[in-house]
Amino acid sequence: MLDCVSMKVNVEYYIKAALKEDITSEDITTNAIVDPKTQGCAQLICKQAGVIAGLEVFRLVFELLDPSARFETEFKDGDLVENGTLVGTVYGSVRTLLTCERTALNFLQRMSGIATYTRECVEVMKTYKTKLLDTRKTTPNMRIFEKYAVKVGGGSNHRYNLSDGILIKDNHIAAAGGIAEAVRLTKEYAPFVRKIEVEAESFEMVKEALGAGADIIMLDNMDNDTLRKSVERIGGKAKTECSGNVTKERLKELCEIGVDYISCGALTHSAPILDFSLKNLKNLD
Amino acid sequence: MLDCVSMKVNVEYYIKAALKEDITSEDITTNAIVDPKTQGCAQLICKQAGVIAGLEVFRLVFELLDPSARFETEFKDGDLVENGTLVGTVYGSVRTLLTCERTALNFLQRMSGIATYTRECVEVMKTYKTKLLDTRKTTPNMRIFEKYAVKVGGGSNHRYNLSDGILIKDNHIAAAGGIAEAVRLTKEYAPFVRKIEVEAESFEMVKEALGAGADIIMLDNMDNDTLRKSVERIGGKAKTECSGNVTKERLKELCEIGVDYISCGALTHSAPILDFSLKNLKNLD
Amino acid sequence: MLDCVSMKVNVEYYIKAALKEDITSEDITTNAIVDPKTQGCAQLICKQAGVIAGLEVFRLVFELLDPSARFETEFKDGDLVENGTLVGTVYGSVRTLLTCERTALNFLQRMSGIATYTRECVEVMKTYKTKLLDTRKTTPNMRIFEKYAVKVGGGSNHRYNLSDGILIKDNHIAAAGGIAEAVRLTKEYAPFVRKIEVEAESFEMVKEALGAGADIIMLDNMDNDTLRKSVERIGGKAKTECSGNVTKERLKELCEIGVDYISCGALTHSAPILDFSLKNLKNLD
Amino acid sequence: MLDCVSMKVNVEYYIKAALKEDITSEDITTNAIVDPKTQGCAQLICKQAGVIAGLEVFRLVFELLDPSARFETEFKDGDLVENGTLVGTVYGSVRTLLTCERTALNFLQRMSGIATYTRECVEVMKTYKTKLLDTRKTTPNMRIFEKYAVKVGGGSNHRYNLSDGILIKDNHIAAAGGIAEAVRLTKEYAPFVRKIEVEAESFEMVKEALGAGADIIMLDNMDNDTLRKSVERIGGKAKTECSGNVTKERLKELCEIGVDYISCGALTHSAPILDFSLKNLKNLD
Amino acid sequence: MLDCVSMKVNVEYYIKAALKEDITSEDITTNAIVDPKTQGCAQLICKQAGVIAGLEVFRLVFELLDPSARFETEFKDGDLVENGTLVGTVYGSVRTLLTCERTALNFLQRMSGIATYTRECVEVMKTYKTKLLDTRKTTPNMRIFEKYAVKVGGGSNHRYNLSDGILIKDNHIAAAGGIAEAVRLTKEYAPFVRKIEVEAESFEMVKEALGAGADIIMLDNMDNDTLRKSVERIGGKAKTECSGNVTKERLKELCEIGVDYISCGALTHSAPILDFSLKNLKNLD
Amino acid sequence: MLDCVSMKVNVEYYIKAALKEDITSEDITTNAIVDPKTQGCAQLICKQAGVIAGLEVFRLVFELLDPSARFETEFKDGDLVENGTLVGTVYGSVRTLLTCERTALNFLQRMSGIATYTRECVEVMKTYKTKLLDTRKTTPNMRIFEKYAVKVGGGSNHRYNLSDGILIKDNHIAAAGGIAEAVRLTKEYAPFVRKIEVEAESFEMVKEALGAGADIIMLDNMDNDTLRKSVERIGGKAKTECSGNVTKERLKELCEIGVDYISCGALTHSAPILDFSLKNLKNLD
Repeated sequence: MLDCVSMKVNVEYYIKAALKEDITSEDITTNAIVDPKTQGCAQLICKQAGVIAGLEVFRLVFELLDPSARFETEFKDGDLVENGTLVGTVYGSVRTLLTCERTALNFLQRMSGIATYTRECVEVMKTYKTKLLDTRKTTPNMRIFEKYAVKVGGGSNHRYNLSDGILIKDNHIAAAGGIAEAVRLTKEYAPFVRKIEVEAESFEMVKEALGAGADIIMLDNMDNDTLRKSVERIGGKAKTECSGNVTKERLKELCEIGVDYISCGALTHSAPILDFSLKNLKNLD
Repeated sequence: MLDCVSMKVNVEYYIKAALKEDITSEDITTNAIVDPKTQGCAQLICKQAGVIAGLEVFRLVFELLDPSARFETEFKDGDLVENGTLVGTVYGSVRTLLTCERTALNFLQRMSGIATYTRECVEVMKTYKTKLLDTRKTTPNMRIFEKYAVKVGGGSNHRYNLSDGILIKDNHIAAAGGIAEAVRLTKEYAPFVRKIEVEAESFEMVKEALGAGADIIMLDNMDNDTLRKSVERIGGKAKTECSGNVTKERLKELCEIGVDYISCGALTHSAPILDFSLKNLKNLD
Repeated sequence: MLDCVSMKVNVEYYIKAALKEDITSEDITTNAIVDPKTQGCAQLICKQAGVIAGLEVFRLVFELLDPSARFETEFKDGDLVENGTLVGTVYGSVRTLLTCERTALNFLQRMSGIATYTRECVEVMKTYKTKLLDTRKTTPNMRIFEKYAVKVGGGSNHRYNLSDGILIKDNHIAAAGGIAEAVRLTKEYAPFVRKIEVEAESFEMVKEALGAGADIIMLDNMDNDTLRKSVERIGGKAKTECSGNVTKERLKELCEIGVDYISCGALTHSAPILDFSLKNLKNLD
Repeated sequence: MLDCVSMKVNVEYYIKAALKEDITSEDITTNAIVDPKTQGCAQLICKQAGVIAGLEVFRLVFELLDPSARFETEFKDGDLVENGTLVGTVYGSVRTLLTCERTALNFLQRMSGIATYTRECVEVMKTYKTKLLDTRKTTPNMRIFEKYAVKVGGGSNHRYNLSDGILIKDNHIAAAGGIAEAVRLTKEYAPFVRKIEVEAESFEMVKEALGAGADIIMLDNMDNDTLRKSVERIGGKAKTECSGNVTKERLKELCEIGVDYISCGALTHSAPILDFSLKNLKNLD
Repeated sequence: MLDCVSMKVNVEYYIKAALKEDITSEDITTNAIVDPKTQGCAQLICKQAGVIAGLEVFRLVFELLDPSARFETEFKDGDLVENGTLVGTVYGSVRTLLTCERTALNFLQRMSGIATYTRECVEVMKTYKTKLLDTRKTTPNMRIFEKYAVKVGGGSNHRYNLSDGILIKDNHIAAAGGIAEAVRLTKEYAPFVRKIEVEAESFEMVKEALGAGADIIMLDNMDNDTLRKSVERIGGKAKTECSGNVTKERLKELCEIGVDYISCGALTHSAPILDFSLKNLKNLD
Repeated sequence: MLDCVSMKVNVEYYIKAALKEDITSEDITTNAIVDPKTQGCAQLICKQAGVIAGLEVFRLVFELLDPSARFETEFKDGDLVENGTLVGTVYGSVRTLLTCERTALNFLQRMSGIATYTRECVEVMKTYKTKLLDTRKTTPNMRIFEKYAVKVGGGSNHRYNLSDGILIKDNHIAAAGGIAEAVRLTKEYAPFVRKIEVEAESFEMVKEALGAGADIIMLDNMDNDTLRKSVERIGGKAKTECSGNVTKERLKELCEIGVDYISCGALTHSAPILDFSLKNLKNLD
């Protein structure tokens, strides 16, 4: 998701906005003390064990502001790091290093936190065919970073936004007057390249969705028995996604029931950060 | 922070960007099924106990897109809500309700999560004079929302960004060649309305900072003994801020040591969300 | 596509940009001559027979600039108009009417031109099950308007952009080293809500695509015999889309071959406009 | 119009917006299949005979996103190309080539279509002194590209927008209470560097405009006799512009009547595109 | 220039940017002290005699941020005000009044300063036919406000920018290899609605410019004798504009020489402000 | 303030906007006459004695538009220049030099004018401890340039905007019901890193402000006797700032009274420009 094209088209904008948020006029402390010509370097050190994600975003924060800046690392997104790992070294003007430090870390720590939490969940599921999905419960204006971090952690992405996926929920069904009618309307309206997903909250609804030709059926907030019965009835004629009250503890039993996908909002809305810091700044002559 | 002027000048921009993130062309599912003229309402329900924050942001998401939309609530930011509390009702076109739901909730759940976590920390400290502070470890492009949520939860704000507060850290001290020189340089350079804060990592540095005339001394990553000794030596001649490895568990003993402020990054970077949902959508004739 | 939410989130931006393109400082001619307080009205008249599309965009151009402006019409998008039809009346300050006229017409004439051309093609196909699709060959920064106009004309939309649909073309196949591998890679990488479309330029490739489990097979630049053989072999196991050198003349025979979809770039890149003008401006006291 | 300064100041903005329109998050198909490090090249081939326009825009689409991209060509805007002509070769990362292809072609095909259509018209007029003009009937947010393409095709530009040219039309005349008053008001109001153009729909109005001191008289929707009489009466005391119902067929007889300029909206609003494609993508080691 | 359309299309943008410049997060002082619900009013008082300009901009600053705000005044742009004049009253939430005060005054004081200075110059010239012009020596991002203020003060506008007027200067002449060639090239290249102005620094150049068919000749940095000789030789065959070292003192003698226009950069780049203040804020129940 | 980070984050935006203001489509005159490939150079010459400020902004205007442009100078901001001083030479494409000239000079002349005027005031004060301050009476959207110029001229900056400094004025005091209450409210509300400044218009108010614990007391519009009495009473317990009716003539006597700071709006709102011009353009082969 964060290839060079997307970075230019969709990511630079957010990085610049984040820097503007942190620098209204200037970094007063740094500019009072550090000469603009001083070059230096500083070390990126991880302070917790986890999965790193966002190295290219971290790099871009410095490089956008200082063409002479560079970030050297032997790590890549998805690598495991330990408390104390020296992840890499940033070179550039000392002013740039000090001024961009917090913004760069704020991206990195959050993305790595999500990747780490995702990896923990994926580990639990690794002997099963079931895949772990994110949701649209992302932090506003952080979706591209957060969905990318989920992939780095080994998860899969659900639809990116409201325009590129169809998900017929309870309110849509009520508005259409039934599942069959809702599916018919979306098939008629939506680009033909879209699959149709229907949310079902009971076994009855599962049967209706199946009959209406849903490509994917979301089994929402069901107990294990209903889930099991639903998966069996669907019998591979549609993909199944389990959703609602998904905790790390419950993942294993959901996998055993045999759903194709489990979606989990907590991946993006409640993962704690992974702590990093920029240390050992040195002047270079 | 989120008064009507700031909402117009600084908040609308982020809300519109968040909506664009979620709607590239249109909400296909909703538009396939719901007639544009249908009016309706839906209930905002809290699914966890906590402190609510962000009601005006929630409201604005709908009102920005649909001049006929309105949000009725008897709650205000800072109120306690329980699992199941009916927080309010949104009225408007059903398309607006369905399309804006997720973006509005994404703001509200994150802001309320921060307010809730802050309140829990503040509760621990409530018999002490020590105040709880946030940091600049916020989610990129969410600072105004997150710092506001900290205040709603009963915390206090540290500097907003690099331009409006002076904080001389280890690297600045190294670059200046000592605390005294760093303080002198910032006093000369910075607007005279700024206080000077100096980060000290040892008792030696505390003494130097005090001698240099720091207004605030940050006691960073110190053990309790060093903290105690430092606070005693400072003796009210500067404000004291304790920082680093601040966990909810340790708050009480830090308060007892008598620091003026404790700053805690986790308030904004690791608070889990408070869960809300928009339910019981009904058409209105 | 152009409901009230999309208009706010995605359309206002383009309208404002178009107005800035036409007004650097002011409309000198109008401001020299017309008093800012003069109110008036003018008639929107169609000067060619066709299908109208873009009435809400036309309205918004005036209303964005002048809260007192309003556009009254008994027509709606998709209606047929004749040369000379009085489509509606715009009311507002005379300055607004004169200054916004060209920008409003430029949107309307282009959107209606596309709807008209699409309708002509759809008419040819109306006794067949085959549906007519647009492509991504749209005018830069006009996609939302042009894809909407295709729907108004009775056509269907293909994917909106590169992020919300998968289409494996010859170059992708070459890069992956074969159709099977390309399909496997996209299934692994892409959000699971996406269908997989594969472009096939020969009967051999059709068989491979079918074997690889493509959801849709694009039959590109094939002669009628190959098309026929391909559709037969696919036998409903994937959707078929015919593409390349599609002219209005050839539509009928393609329909008879029985493809599910025909995609046609000319709908958006080469439809001539439908001519409208704003006439009979009158002052109102 | 598209020199390096304008490209930076006014064109980059539209190119970036067009790319954002086509890439919400990423090019899923390409990113699933192509390694980010793979470099390659592809050939730009023309698929119809015509006049090429927009080569620098085409180049910039790739170079904006990929600093290592380059476009090599021996053609320049205004050159004639044939069906099958190899226009040039683009080098860069294969991901860039595939992802930017459509946006780059969408600009090029439209600009070249306008240049080609303009050239055809200009050819008809080439033995006459009469010049061919464009209008403000351009595609919204495409004016700078379309007016440039008209020049590449050998046409001339009328005013760029409402702020930089004065054109007194029927409604202005009505509002002012006559041509003489309208001309007086604009001379008083407008920057003195502007010429004054007046639209005349009858021989009477031509005489009035001439008497009022118009610099240019637009002869709007006149039959050939009235045109001839008007041109004769004006006798070089003002420039003459013929407008309304201008078809390619009628150009020759209008030239013979001896007007100075003929303006034609179809140049920008109804020219079909000139077809190009990007072919023969190859990996380079 | 500042009619309702331009205000929407070109002015709101600058006002919002100016407010963002002054409010990064919030107006801390006001928000600490004033309740958001308190309504009030304050008086706009002039503290120097002069010509007022910018009342609608002043109004818009408040109204953009607070839909309930209104500004009542019996003055209009161009009116004379004295030290102590009560110009009008602003009503709205007290927070809005206090927060927007400085931004609104910063626009008004600068625009009124320019109008006042312009009026003083125009007064000197009032018995002559010569008109006073501004230049492009405006404050960056303030051109629309400054050129409007010049008109309010009784001056006339020269070209608005580089795209809408032709002015051939010494460097252009050198590049073209002579005045005649430069004029020929611009006539060929530029939209035919443009007049051609040529800068002449000597009597020789005046003759050349005249011979080349310039519409306007700028007599740059000439002594009075050369000016007189030039005006005489031109004899009405082109408009004359006198430029360079124009001081208020010299205006009268330049008028007497009989040039058509005098251009003066000081109008926009060196006029001191006209002092206003917002006083007597009162709460309203 | 204008280090490389701020230039990227906060200054480029204004420069691009200023260029767009001056170039709607293109520089017609230059593009008609100058070949795009011609390289050249031109000299930046000062036409008045003064203090130069804004050289990096001047440079950036050219370099933003033309990567091959460069500006060579041996001067730096703060240097004194004489009438006729050759400040430096700009190299680049001749089109860039001619097209960017005015925008680059408009920044430089205004910034240098402010630096020059500030220096003159500072000179008067140089044997005193009193420092000279700017205010928020800056030109809209020019604050970063104007506050920087004040520093270059030897002045000091007051708060940057409403979000980063606290200044309790008469209206705030009235709203709070007294100075003590106002100070208490701001201490409670504002980030603890802010100093509290209170505006006092009488000796009584000075005493109150002192009692309330103000860090800085602004002595507003006082006669010399009241000023003297106030400074004496404050006796170093708060910083003192003298404001209102500060003219260059009065500076000396204010210094003698012994205030710590004098703030002066005229520095930014009424300084005349320092005149520069770009001369002797030459082609380079």
